[in-house]
Amino acid sequence: MSKFIEISEVGPRDGLQSIKAIMSLEDKKAWVSAEAACGVPEIEVGSFVPAKILPQLADTAELVAHALTIEGLAVAVLVPNLRGAQDAVRSGAHKITIPLSASETHSLANVNRTHEQMLGEVKKIANLIRALPSAARPKFEGGISTAFGCTLEGNVPQERILHLANALMEAGCDEVGLSDTTGYATPNQVRDLVRAVKAEVGDENLTGLHLHNTRGLGLANVVVALDNGITTIDASLGGIGGCPFAPGASGNIVTEDLVFMLDAMGFDTGIDIEKLMDVRKIVERALPGEPLYGFTPDAGLPLGYKR
Amino acid sequence: MSKFIEISEVGPRDGLQSIKAIMSLEDKKAWVSAEAACGVPEIEVGSFVPAKILPQLADTAELVAHALTIEGLAVAVLVPNLRGAQDAVRSGAHKITIPLSASETHSLANVNRTHEQMLGEVKKIANLIRALPSAARPKFEGGISTAFGCTLEGNVPQERILHLANALMEAGCDEVGLSDTTGYATPNQVRDLVRAVKAEVGDENLTGLHLHNTRGLGLANVVVALDNGITTIDASLGGIGGCPFAPGASGNIVTEDLVFMLDAMGFDTGIDIEKLMDVRKIVERALPGEPLYGFTPDAGLPLGYKR
Repeated sequence: MSKFIEISEVGPRDGLQSIKAIMSLEDKKAWVSAEAACGVPEIEVGSFVPAKILPQLADTAELVAHALTIEGLAVAVLVPNLRGAQDAVRSGAHKITIPLSASETHSLANVNRTHEQMLGEVKKIANLIRALPSAARPKFEGGISTAFGCTLEGNVPQERILHLANALMEAGCDEVGLSDTTGYATPNQVRDLVRAVKAEVGDENLTGLHLHNTRGLGLANVVVALDNGITTIDASLGGIGGCPFAPGASGNIVTEDLVFMLDAMGFDTGIDIEKLMDVRKIVERALPGEPLYGFTPDAGLPLGYKR
Repeated sequence: MSKFIEISEVGPRDGLQSIKAIMSLEDKKAWVSAEAACGVPEIEVGSFVPAKILPQLADTAELVAHALTIEGLAVAVLVPNLRGAQDAVRSGAHKITIPLSASETHSLANVNRTHEQMLGEVKKIANLIRALPSAARPKFEGGISTAFGCTLEGNVPQERILHLANALMEAGCDEVGLSDTTGYATPNQVRDLVRAVKAEVGDENLTGLHLHNTRGLGLANVVVALDNGITTIDASLGGIGGCPFAPGASGNIVTEDLVFMLDAMGFDTGIDIEKLMDVRKIVERALPGEPLYGFTPDAGLPLGYKR
């Protein structure tokens, strides 16, 4: 039996929030349905943020409602605060992630809140979730963004990440994640930080990474992450995405290239790569003129390639 | 002390042979000089092939002569046969590589020779080199191309690579190399093949890999290669290059991204990355309209980045 690696598609959230064009709800539904039909186990479909901040994601509640009709799909959303979490709980999403930027400068620029204020929100959200009947409780992740460095602050000391990871768990998160919001992560750093955070909060409480391909190291970082016990990797179809508040930082890992690599390494992703490459057509049609990335879609699968 | 990893720049050979435009000798000289001045320790400057087959590389002898004036630079060339090796020896190049395609179909398409015929050429070249005074002997590498799969034959069995690696050493090569001519290599395959070939021919007789980034896995493959004792990696400035005889296969690893990754991993490459990124301007000016690749040049170095 191959080891299962969970790919979490974040294109409808991280991809769409970083481009100007607004994809219609119908196109988003078609994208999510098509990608789920390829076997993608989890899709982050949107963020519960005010429409005036991210009009691209204003229909997140409707998209969650659609995604919940797809059998077997884990439906994830991002929330910046308690208000967003209330909407997320109301929507019925299976997983709620709150990003906490390790760089306080970035946190202030992104959500206008200090670390302490953010941890206060996390506690309130954890209480909100605990008050729900257990069957209705979404999984609650604290995602440490700019964990590998910040375009505003530069290097972020490891002690600060460990402190925040602990604080998130204590505030009531079910698990923490690490995000390379700025595309600064390098293989050594991934190894060192994953090991350190796992040692700090427990192996089972850090399972996922959100990596970018800004400097071309995305898949190299994945290889090292898998070697160090990470089992969930975020990626974006066609590599669209990034962070609108971290200048120069763009480019999620391309889902198609990630699936190709994991398949070829003998991992089980549950995803049909040929069908997945066809999903690009939906995104291309829905976002005319928007560049899609990825090497495997251009080059095609190797001759005689078998999953 | 950091471990030294040797980057061998192959753009002037592998890059230029795969594009239609012919770079002038003066521009090539400027490129080679500029890149050597950044600290690049080895540059493959051309191939000794008939000008009617690769007019882009017709001035290889003149470029070798220029490169030999650069102190400390190892000057490498490719040769397809004895005739090319005679020219290479006459040129005074420090290193001669003869490619032997593990796929016989590809070998016939590329140089119109079977494995047996190629091994016969290798023996003749080894004799030619051995007849030289020891101080004048170039290093002689047998480069096994399509080692990770072939666009014409598909999968290439490992036993065949091991057989050819042995045959190349027995025929008189100083070392063997493995080339992912088609961009098929995956991290597991790199690990398995490097280990198997090293076990077969001796650890010290396989030190270098030539990897492509055709499906985006180039740097991931490098990380695994380094973990398994590889110390020399080929790359091409701006990622130009590929194999004109392997359809759909293109894209050397981008030197700039490779240097960034190795620096960031704490390896010593001896290369000044900021100066290296400036060398792109020479290539851009010399090859108007030709696309250059690379993520790090677009994104820039991380804030506060130190080598």
